[in-house]
Amino acid sequence: VKILRTMKRLNGARGVSYPYVHSKEGSGCYFKDLDGNTFLDFASQVCSNPLGYNHPGIKETIKQYMNRSPVKFAGQDFLVKEHGDLLEELLSITPKQLNAAFLINSGAEAVENAMKICMHKRTSSTFGISCTNDFHGRTLGALSYTHSNPVHKKGFFTVPNKQLPFSDQAPVVLEQLTRQGAKKIAFVIMEMVQGEGGYNVASKKMIRDVRKICSSNSIPFICDEVQSGMGRTGKWWAFQHFGIVPDAMSSAKALNVGATIANKKLFPVEEGAISSTWGGGNIIDLAVGCQTIKIIKKKRLLSNVQQQGMYVKKRLNEVSAHGVVRNVRGLGLMVAFDLPTKKIRDDMILESLQRGLVLLGCGPKGVRIVPPFIVSRREIDEAINIIEASIKRCCAKDFSHTGAICQFTSCTTSTT
Amino acid sequence: VKILRTMKRLNGARGVSYPYVHSKEGSGCYFKDLDGNTFLDFASQVCSNPLGYNHPGIKETIKQYMNRSPVKFAGQDFLVKEHGDLLEELLSITPKQLNAAFLINSGAEAVENAMKICMHKRTSSTFGISCTNDFHGRTLGALSYTHSNPVHKKGFFTVPNKQLPFSDQAPVVLEQLTRQGAKKIAFVIMEMVQGEGGYNVASKKMIRDVRKICSSNSIPFICDEVQSGMGRTGKWWAFQHFGIVPDAMSSAKALNVGATIANKKLFPVEEGAISSTWGGGNIIDLAVGCQTIKIIKKKRLLSNVQQQGMYVKKRLNEVSAHGVVRNVRGLGLMVAFDLPTKKIRDDMILESLQRGLVLLGCGPKGVRIVPPFIVSRREIDEAINIIEASIKRCCAKDFSHTGAICQFTSCTTSTT
Repeated sequence: VKILRTMKRLNGARGVSYPYVHSKEGSGCYFKDLDGNTFLDFASQVCSNPLGYNHPGIKETIKQYMNRSPVKFAGQDFLVKEHGDLLEELLSITPKQLNAAFLINSGAEAVENAMKICMHKRTSSTFGISCTNDFHGRTLGALSYTHSNPVHKKGFFTVPNKQLPFSDQAPVVLEQLTRQGAKKIAFVIMEMVQGEGGYNVASKKMIRDVRKICSSNSIPFICDEVQSGMGRTGKWWAFQHFGIVPDAMSSAKALNVGATIANKKLFPVEEGAISSTWGGGNIIDLAVGCQTIKIIKKKRLLSNVQQQGMYVKKRLNEVSAHGVVRNVRGLGLMVAFDLPTKKIRDDMILESLQRGLVLLGCGPKGVRIVPPFIVSRREIDEAINIIEASIKRCCAKDFSHTGAICQFTSCTTSTT
Repeated sequence: VKILRTMKRLNGARGVSYPYVHSKEGSGCYFKDLDGNTFLDFASQVCSNPLGYNHPGIKETIKQYMNRSPVKFAGQDFLVKEHGDLLEELLSITPKQLNAAFLINSGAEAVENAMKICMHKRTSSTFGISCTNDFHGRTLGALSYTHSNPVHKKGFFTVPNKQLPFSDQAPVVLEQLTRQGAKKIAFVIMEMVQGEGGYNVASKKMIRDVRKICSSNSIPFICDEVQSGMGRTGKWWAFQHFGIVPDAMSSAKALNVGATIANKKLFPVEEGAISSTWGGGNIIDLAVGCQTIKIIKKKRLLSNVQQQGMYVKKRLNEVSAHGVVRNVRGLGLMVAFDLPTKKIRDDMILESLQRGLVLLGCGPKGVRIVPPFIVSRREIDEAINIIEASIKRCCAKDFSHTGAICQFTSCTTSTT
């Protein structure tokens, strides 16, 4: 509680945190807070923790760095071995056209640099294009193409951008824009599964048609895989469900560092057109990212993601038979469902937390189900039971929160 | 060499790296590369490594994390103790008006968020202001206010911005702009010592007058302390040399994480107006940042920075008596000098490297002298001797590089 009070006082970003503090204790999908409470984590640090808590393989990697400092090098100027190792490992899981990567510090920076290399190549371009309800990050460039929640953008300057609907109308609108001058378009960026916007899965037709229009007009097509990539959907990259390959993509979260990935030819030839002090230089983060890919390969976790993802959906569809859980959707272990109202959703997430299950919201009234890739059927059953009980409680007419939890949370919607 | 080749092939950012790869060996201001060569580091990972290599206090901190995973939490949503600890420590070294901070992933993101909180507050604003030759980062928002090198910006979209000259004319131009409508101005952002732009030290008059105009028009004044902060100039923050306190500031590099620091009242009240997945969540980076501040305090390193900084300038001024080293300038251990041409500068940095000294360029023909804060007089003497010998060699009429070094470097100018 003391730490929570300190945070409330000193943190510039206001009070959306969950009311507990992580301890070092934990195993698999479970972790303990500093007060000794155990939680089942179905939020995975907003998809940044694919292997759960205290994974032996990751701990082994970190241990190699215990007798060394500094941790952070200026990785584009001064090379570390881990930079090269991660590039090799990362490019082993991308389609062969995507054969170069630029490592940076965050998902937002991964998106910014994907956009930047396209702008740089498209010398006549004046705007870029994204979709309604997209989330691409919070730096002003990435934010200009983000349309998932007005609070993310209110008051902030933007660079020139246009929107496509996230529907089969997208190709129609894009076609119109190309007729007004395809050269003006720097790029089209899309999420195959919209993250913050509500875990909306794109239609195959939309993606394929948009990809085709981009190809025939030489407009770079960027897939934002920050949340959906690295195996979260049961394939390494969500675009692989759609039978297409983008010209550039962004990765971060489960990769443990940010990455802009594209064909070498799409990157600027001029030295210094893109760079970053810490990019490709945090040796522990780089090594953990590299090891994460290796473990997902070795333990065949993509197959577990596919199987458990189907089981999650099956169980949620059973619950939805009662009529409150609606619109179960997603790919692999990137699953969500809606509740009748925002209030019930927010209440339900808090109620689940009090029962030991960590969940995240998305979209206006959605709940994300994004456990670590190592999740088992038993843990899914446990989570579904808590969800069912919490929904029941929160839908009761006289429901309201009480106790210590209300002091520190006004709303559990993730705003990340 | 194999790693260098891999990097050249797979890295999207082109070939500006120095032609060696760091190993874990090193001590103080010296490190070894993977081939066993020893270098004296007067670049400090572009000012990101204030305590040098294998500092026992930092190693002790890192060791505490060797038996724990993950390393990265979604720190704004899910709290870790290290987040609160660093906020407390960081705000112990800021003026009391700057009493809240938002921790994020990079210097660029620190600047973006400083700008964002000002835009958010200034609801009628339509543009922000920075200075000619400023460098504030490479994400599109920060980049819009960066004017240090055309290659950083070529082809990239920008948000609305205006420039002040970096001279005593700045207050005059700012005054004119306020008369055209002070409400339109979201912020004025400045570097007290321009980094990439050439280590140009601002005049006290300029800074004080600009600060005054900002105050009387309620325009937030932001100091970008990403490179100059955390003690690099001999005070915790460069603005302390100017007798002013800004409304907001950015920190990163030597802090080991990014931070936007301001009065709590300047931060948006709305939840979710600013956030970041990994911000305030990388437990090792946070702990190292916190420990760095503690060590600088305990070992009174600010005093060493002041003393050794004076000694560096004294020695450089002696060298400059020969007429080639010009315009020795800087504060504390943020020192630079110019050479007659860009070519001689670039050659000299490579030549010094071959003799075991790592230097960085800045501005059109400047050389930075930015050793770790722990540097000794003996090491400064060693560096100055190499610099003198290298200059002599590079100024010889028939000078040209030969050998393996040319394979991997076309120019050593930092483009970070």
